[in-house]
Amino acid sequence: MKSEIRTLFWQDDAVVMIDQRALPVEEKNLICTDYRQVIAAIRDMTVRGAPAIGVAAALGIALGALGIEASTSEAFREAFAKLCRQFAATRPTARNLFWAIERMKRRFDAALAAAPAAAAKSPAADPWRWVREALVAEAIGVGEEDVAINRRLGKFGSALIPAGGRILTHCNAGALATAGYGTALGVLRAAWETGNRIQVYVDETRPVLQGARLTAWELTREGIPCTLVTDSMAGFLMQQGKIDLVITGADRIAANGDTANKIGTYSLAVLAKAHQIPFYVAAPCSTIDPSLPDGRAIPIEERSCDEVTGVGALRTAPEGIAVYNPAFDVTPHGLITAIITEAGVLHPPFSEAIEKTAVPLPQTSAAAAKTTPRTAVL
Amino acid sequence: MKSEIRTLFWQDDAVVMIDQRALPVEEKNLICTDYRQVIAAIRDMTVRGAPAIGVAAALGIALGALGIEASTSEAFREAFAKLCRQFAATRPTARNLFWAIERMKRRFDAALAAAPAAAAKSPAADPWRWVREALVAEAIGVGEEDVAINRRLGKFGSALIPAGGRILTHCNAGALATAGYGTALGVLRAAWETGNRIQVYVDETRPVLQGARLTAWELTREGIPCTLVTDSMAGFLMQQGKIDLVITGADRIAANGDTANKIGTYSLAVLAKAHQIPFYVAAPCSTIDPSLPDGRAIPIEERSCDEVTGVGALRTAPEGIAVYNPAFDVTPHGLITAIITEAGVLHPPFSEAIEKTAVPLPQTSAAAAKTTPRTAVL
Repeated sequence: MKSEIRTLFWQDDAVVMIDQRALPVEEKNLICTDYRQVIAAIRDMTVRGAPAIGVAAALGIALGALGIEASTSEAFREAFAKLCRQFAATRPTARNLFWAIERMKRRFDAALAAAPAAAAKSPAADPWRWVREALVAEAIGVGEEDVAINRRLGKFGSALIPAGGRILTHCNAGALATAGYGTALGVLRAAWETGNRIQVYVDETRPVLQGARLTAWELTREGIPCTLVTDSMAGFLMQQGKIDLVITGADRIAANGDTANKIGTYSLAVLAKAHQIPFYVAAPCSTIDPSLPDGRAIPIEERSCDEVTGVGALRTAPEGIAVYNPAFDVTPHGLITAIITEAGVLHPPFSEAIEKTAVPLPQTSAAAAKTTPRTAVL
Repeated sequence: MKSEIRTLFWQDDAVVMIDQRALPVEEKNLICTDYRQVIAAIRDMTVRGAPAIGVAAALGIALGALGIEASTSEAFREAFAKLCRQFAATRPTARNLFWAIERMKRRFDAALAAAPAAAAKSPAADPWRWVREALVAEAIGVGEEDVAINRRLGKFGSALIPAGGRILTHCNAGALATAGYGTALGVLRAAWETGNRIQVYVDETRPVLQGARLTAWELTREGIPCTLVTDSMAGFLMQQGKIDLVITGADRIAANGDTANKIGTYSLAVLAKAHQIPFYVAAPCSTIDPSLPDGRAIPIEERSCDEVTGVGALRTAPEGIAVYNPAFDVTPHGLITAIITEAGVLHPPFSEAIEKTAVPLPQTSAAAAKTTPRTAVL
């Protein structure tokens, strides 16, 4: 078995990440020594997947904080808030991004509050060293916790997978979508580790082909049997009785269980319902946004036309064609069989289950996180 | 307005066709002077779309018959039957292919029966000239009739399109899928010609991208407003109330109305039903195969893995990945609102409607057409 996939991590005052645009053709790391490289990497999907975006933002903010020059705590606070705003403006849908930013803000506030006492330990040349170190530690912690969370939710989820289950998954909710191990693919990894000889059908997931490029790569590397299909084949597979369950990740889950995920997820959920096939969502609690009563308020990112008019540099559609390219859709909670989290498997009614589930950080709406630098309230 | 699209036609003892693999990047014709080029063109999808495949086979058989050398009518008959078998083995799903082959066989038999009398008119050097000319005339007739049929079904179908209707279509059932004008796109063209300012959403239709490459090209050329989406977006469009109806072509329709069409059609039909959106199929009567009681017996072609593991020469999936690549799926009749033909609009129960509808040629199963040279019975 190959070594574990390390999607992104902190090393020598730099953020290191697998360049996911190059996969599966090439396996190479991008080393970001400037936080603006991390911002670009989130935007251009060098790193993608809601939990991974959260970890990237935490690491990127820590990296950015290393470079802040400020002579007063007010100036430091202001520069840090601006840094956070830049990360919040990268991508709108993934809840984990805003969750991670809030978490970094909370640590910043706590560290700054402790700074006067700690300052004595900092060299005169850098009175904020204590704060910077706290942020780096926090960001590394976010990544490490993410892997632990995925292993936990993987174990919970694996109990739902029947022996030899034939599973359809969409996009990539794997090690590459997280700091490691994965959410939906974490469940499949956990099932595989218990000896369950599952078979996985992988939607290629146009337009960015995360299924074909990333999930197929991860599963092949792991030796888990998988078959690549186009997104349009899902219904036909179900009609033929070839699918026992569908499992996907999530980018944001509203208080009632409505779930935003990669475009095409909603279609799969409707198809699963029509074929009486269970439809599972696997996500850490940091994906839950209890500030949104339902999915209607989840902001849906629209991305560049170029993603749809071609593949990579290859142009496939006529010039001048209009394109609609929402990156996500929202699956109503009524189509979801269960939501698998590190706190356990949530069953309907999700409103109650979500209310009872500890959400590790205070509620923030994406809008608030994007426009208002605010102090987190524990 | 640009000139009409002439997808394929007979010219100077050659079969001329638009090279659909090159579209939309390049508009060029392939000139086939050998029937084996036509066979290759059907196989590699230089020409595709059930009615166009039928016309290509008719023209290809005429071309092949020009080259048959035979000293006896038995030898000629045998060579002709072999020629037909070669065309029947190109692609298994499209009913129109077998329909066209049967039609050419019928004409061959009639011409051969008349040959002794007609032979006097033929030069001694070619006693079969009369038969060859009859086959060329028949093949040209199949193509011309196809355009006329499409205009007729287009007119019937256009009455079903609400004013300003927002329409989702899949694959290409346009001029390029026929000898001209198109079936599903023929309906949209007819609606547009009456002044109905429709808007069309075009599924890109992986893996071969007939939507992105061909339908988008046709509609843009015609000036009909259209928006390109990935196949995975259909459900989300419907959920948002952006689709008034779905219309597709068909590759084969069983006696009960079950319809084989491009992979992904079944998913769309399930999604349309779930959103209470009408789902129409547009096809000439030659697509109907009354020899098959239902869709279960329709042979579904599986094509090369390469179509799914990349786009054109671009590789997107990891090496060695397993692939499932059915080119078609079957939509049960219960999901179809109406079938639009040149004989009128067929409504459920389709079994009755199909039985009443004149089917222009005798029943032949694909298997029979492929393996047994048989004389058509009118």
